[in-house]
Amino acid sequence: MLPAGTKRKIIMDCDPGHDDAVAILMAARHPSLELLGITTVRGNQTIEKTTRNALHVCQWLGIEVPVCQGMSRPIVRDPPPVEDRLHGDSGLDGPEFPPLKKQADRRHGVDFIIDTLLSAAGQITLVPTGPLTNIAMAIRKEPAILEKIEEIVLMGGCYQLGNVTPAAEFNIHADAEAAHIVFTCGRPVSMMGLDITRKALCLPAVIERMEKIENRAARLFAGMMRYFSMTQKRVFGWEGGPLHDPTCIAYLIDPSCIEQKSMYTEIDIRSEQSYGRTNCDYFSLRKEPHNSRVAVNIDVEKFWDIVEQCIGLY
Amino acid sequence: MLPAGTKRKIIMDCDPGHDDAVAILMAARHPSLELLGITTVRGNQTIEKTTRNALHVCQWLGIEVPVCQGMSRPIVRDPPPVEDRLHGDSGLDGPEFPPLKKQADRRHGVDFIIDTLLSAAGQITLVPTGPLTNIAMAIRKEPAILEKIEEIVLMGGCYQLGNVTPAAEFNIHADAEAAHIVFTCGRPVSMMGLDITRKALCLPAVIERMEKIENRAARLFAGMMRYFSMTQKRVFGWEGGPLHDPTCIAYLIDPSCIEQKSMYTEIDIRSEQSYGRTNCDYFSLRKEPHNSRVAVNIDVEKFWDIVEQCIGLY
Amino acid sequence: MLPAGTKRKIIMDCDPGHDDAVAILMAARHPSLELLGITTVRGNQTIEKTTRNALHVCQWLGIEVPVCQGMSRPIVRDPPPVEDRLHGDSGLDGPEFPPLKKQADRRHGVDFIIDTLLSAAGQITLVPTGPLTNIAMAIRKEPAILEKIEEIVLMGGCYQLGNVTPAAEFNIHADAEAAHIVFTCGRPVSMMGLDITRKALCLPAVIERMEKIENRAARLFAGMMRYFSMTQKRVFGWEGGPLHDPTCIAYLIDPSCIEQKSMYTEIDIRSEQSYGRTNCDYFSLRKEPHNSRVAVNIDVEKFWDIVEQCIGLY
Amino acid sequence: MLPAGTKRKIIMDCDPGHDDAVAILMAARHPSLELLGITTVRGNQTIEKTTRNALHVCQWLGIEVPVCQGMSRPIVRDPPPVEDRLHGDSGLDGPEFPPLKKQADRRHGVDFIIDTLLSAAGQITLVPTGPLTNIAMAIRKEPAILEKIEEIVLMGGCYQLGNVTPAAEFNIHADAEAAHIVFTCGRPVSMMGLDITRKALCLPAVIERMEKIENRAARLFAGMMRYFSMTQKRVFGWEGGPLHDPTCIAYLIDPSCIEQKSMYTEIDIRSEQSYGRTNCDYFSLRKEPHNSRVAVNIDVEKFWDIVEQCIGLY
Repeated sequence: MLPAGTKRKIIMDCDPGHDDAVAILMAARHPSLELLGITTVRGNQTIEKTTRNALHVCQWLGIEVPVCQGMSRPIVRDPPPVEDRLHGDSGLDGPEFPPLKKQADRRHGVDFIIDTLLSAAGQITLVPTGPLTNIAMAIRKEPAILEKIEEIVLMGGCYQLGNVTPAAEFNIHADAEAAHIVFTCGRPVSMMGLDITRKALCLPAVIERMEKIENRAARLFAGMMRYFSMTQKRVFGWEGGPLHDPTCIAYLIDPSCIEQKSMYTEIDIRSEQSYGRTNCDYFSLRKEPHNSRVAVNIDVEKFWDIVEQCIGLY
Repeated sequence: MLPAGTKRKIIMDCDPGHDDAVAILMAARHPSLELLGITTVRGNQTIEKTTRNALHVCQWLGIEVPVCQGMSRPIVRDPPPVEDRLHGDSGLDGPEFPPLKKQADRRHGVDFIIDTLLSAAGQITLVPTGPLTNIAMAIRKEPAILEKIEEIVLMGGCYQLGNVTPAAEFNIHADAEAAHIVFTCGRPVSMMGLDITRKALCLPAVIERMEKIENRAARLFAGMMRYFSMTQKRVFGWEGGPLHDPTCIAYLIDPSCIEQKSMYTEIDIRSEQSYGRTNCDYFSLRKEPHNSRVAVNIDVEKFWDIVEQCIGLY
Repeated sequence: MLPAGTKRKIIMDCDPGHDDAVAILMAARHPSLELLGITTVRGNQTIEKTTRNALHVCQWLGIEVPVCQGMSRPIVRDPPPVEDRLHGDSGLDGPEFPPLKKQADRRHGVDFIIDTLLSAAGQITLVPTGPLTNIAMAIRKEPAILEKIEEIVLMGGCYQLGNVTPAAEFNIHADAEAAHIVFTCGRPVSMMGLDITRKALCLPAVIERMEKIENRAARLFAGMMRYFSMTQKRVFGWEGGPLHDPTCIAYLIDPSCIEQKSMYTEIDIRSEQSYGRTNCDYFSLRKEPHNSRVAVNIDVEKFWDIVEQCIGLY
Repeated sequence: MLPAGTKRKIIMDCDPGHDDAVAILMAARHPSLELLGITTVRGNQTIEKTTRNALHVCQWLGIEVPVCQGMSRPIVRDPPPVEDRLHGDSGLDGPEFPPLKKQADRRHGVDFIIDTLLSAAGQITLVPTGPLTNIAMAIRKEPAILEKIEEIVLMGGCYQLGNVTPAAEFNIHADAEAAHIVFTCGRPVSMMGLDITRKALCLPAVIERMEKIENRAARLFAGMMRYFSMTQKRVFGWEGGPLHDPTCIAYLIDPSCIEQKSMYTEIDIRSEQSYGRTNCDYFSLRKEPHNSRVAVNIDVEKFWDIVEQCIGLY
């Protein structure tokens, strides 16, 4: 636990994206967190669009941190197709933003991560909610950052069913080699996978509840989630959009909302068919040292309370 | 549905094994099934031991069908280690059997399957509850058998967590190439995977319930399951042994006890790490034609009723 | 070396095919060999066509041995396309054969191999010149045959460049799992790969030389090789057809025509891209026990002398 | 061809290493080349040692270009063991160097490549003679460099036999994912593989011939190659050390000394067994667009003349 009054320093690395945007919203003002900067990555959309979306969200919410554009494609594999069925052509369809004035920081996302870590007095937590390309590139380009990483709290993977292939979840599948680098880097990894994020379904009642807060953040939340729920219903038949990425921030704010289990997790980077599977050794069938704490349950009530609290801070 | 009074013809292909033995017990006397023969395969134990165990079970229960020894090892991969932690040194530790008089049929298990299918008037259902080596060899050696196969109802696989590796279940992992052959053979495949068989836990109360029937079958059941529950507790910490294989017979007797979902399932035979994973496309993410009906739920109460009914027939 | 007057017993396993047919021609009458039977396999053409071609060659040359039809497809992978660009629609285009009277033996090729080995007084050499499906199936179905196998002398593989993919040669690529089974079976394997068979080019001068022998065998040879040279030129631009398969028979007749090197050879069955590569450890980079003697050079003059000698025996 | 008097701009990326050192020696003074800088990579030895060796060679020869330390390990796979059997504990055993005064440039090798390319007026040729980690990282971190790359002339790969595994050559095997990135980057790749570099054997007569030049470069050459020949004989039994890396420079100075063939080359990054194989499609078996010009022969006489000429320039 942090001493009272101490804020946990984090860098968010994301591909907004509706659920990424909610995660930014939550992280930027919460008193227990200090958001040092945002790096963007290609994921749900091209790097130009995810960067633009991050800037829009920051401008709208008055978040004054550097936004640094990172990797425009996965390290090894070909770029995955953009996921415009769920996130729309802009990657963040739904809300209408005023003209963009906030500009991206000129530093490369990978170098921002490296420089921020190396120059920090203490440790920093990395919070990747997109493909792990930036984090992996930073770790490889400058291994000296490792000892400055407190924890990597990521959204990705699953030990049950995938969502882009039967075996794999989108963020890991989008750059499995990057995920392999992260899971073998030796630092603590907390994995928020589909096994729990699928339970954080933003149903209409949740949207109404948040909308009642009646501030900029609430309006952004409602505008985004109305769109996202509509596309999730169209594509998957679900009644709400799962808030995958915000589970990372909720966990940072109140770890008790996520039940974790320590285990060895290995990324399949050699198979064509199971490429990107997170083989989580839930039953310790193999005798490998544990390298991850995998989320196995979420207290959904508590989760929405945290989301509500965060929106109320604007 | 079969016309009234018609029995469904089946061949059981197994590696007894405690749960295989219960499956044999259930299949041999039920009025809706006609057991044409039993073939054995290396799986939980060596082929000599699984054959011997099948003979012991038949002799004890007075089951007069041919028992044909099949494949002594997987088609491609090296033989897996025997699973004597769960099934004991004999592969069926627990009950004490009288000296063995029943002899194995001299036909090779693979040829028995081929010859029985080719000479049958109608179709036959294959019920493999061990590695799929015999079935796959028969399909490849004589493809003309395919049109005589009504359905393949198998115990194996999982779409959630494996039990020999994080990715894979024992029977499929023990011969994934054989599983690939079966799942791509073009005939209907019903898969009873760990996702439901883990729910068929034979707790002490179940053993007591069955024991009250007080016949040879009940004594065999209790003798086996006491041992199996003890080893499951020792190895996995569970309070009972899962009756994996009998789910196949319960499904054949009363399909309503198993909820199935039609989907495309692909076996990973190329990965080292995910070797033997059954990549079940639950959400139809890929556009492949469905080749399997995967069990997604089991009515546990109904299941035990069927087991009880079967034991009562002796 | 065999005692004087002793014939080496062989079973040929093939997919004729022009070069297979020359191999049969050579093996059937040579005084140092006793051909016990021919099994056929799908390879250059469908199993029906390769069987038919084997029967035609035997009938034409008066070879009175059983011809047993074997596997109609590879064990695991999908059947490769037929190679009719090189071997024509019949799989043995070129010569015109009289109506076929010789009939295939009714035994399955796999069972013929098993039964012949098990019932033999001594050991037998297997000579596969097509995909290794039959041999592998026999080894797996009845492992007791292993000790009756003197040697497996096969045409297939390469340690340099492949001919169906950059990595792999046709026979191995057509059923790499079967090749894996053969190379790991523990019996001596002599591999005649593309590295040397590409040097056994049947140029026009060779055809003329053999044609001068003026008997049925010479006419068959010339008829086949004229066609085969024509297609090789059309497809590959070469001036003659390589007599891949006969190198196995030449080696059996006079081992001095082939230079071999003992080494460990491993078949890639997991890669999509390098599927079927024979990774021959020429420099003993790995410390694995040697499981093969790989042909590294051929005495081409001596080879043609042996072919000529064999043709002259008719 | 370059206009008369124009120098071809190059960046060398290397892991010296004896043969790398000779390549530096050759590139630094030749009138047709302008060496812009040297980046180092982990390969034959750790990054600290290969950087130190590059600095020693530059200091000894008076080469005034930046030496920038690059990647300390491969992008995805674990670092390979150092090759001290051939290159000694320092990675460049043999010659004795005076105390090191030249210092490495403070820029990261990857950033040096990016910045040099982006700020250049025209195009630059990259000459990697170690694992391709730096080049690949630069391409992925800043794809805008691609259009500034004239050609990538690399030492690595083979289409015949590997030297670290039966399938693969050291530089490619040491970071196959990096090689995959380079071969799929869309720029011209010239590959100098073992197929030709094994022919550039530095026999004792060559060492004597170069030594007669009697200058600093000749003394360095002789000191290094005496050691390297000794270890090659001890490890491989060869009479001389192959000058793998200098073939790249010889090709740049006089392309006529290397015979190339245009083809499609694919790196195997998914197989465990064939990991790092360069599957060169020599016969165009696949219909993929060509992405490489692969060296298929070397004019050894001409090669040594070029080496001699280069040594004479000091």
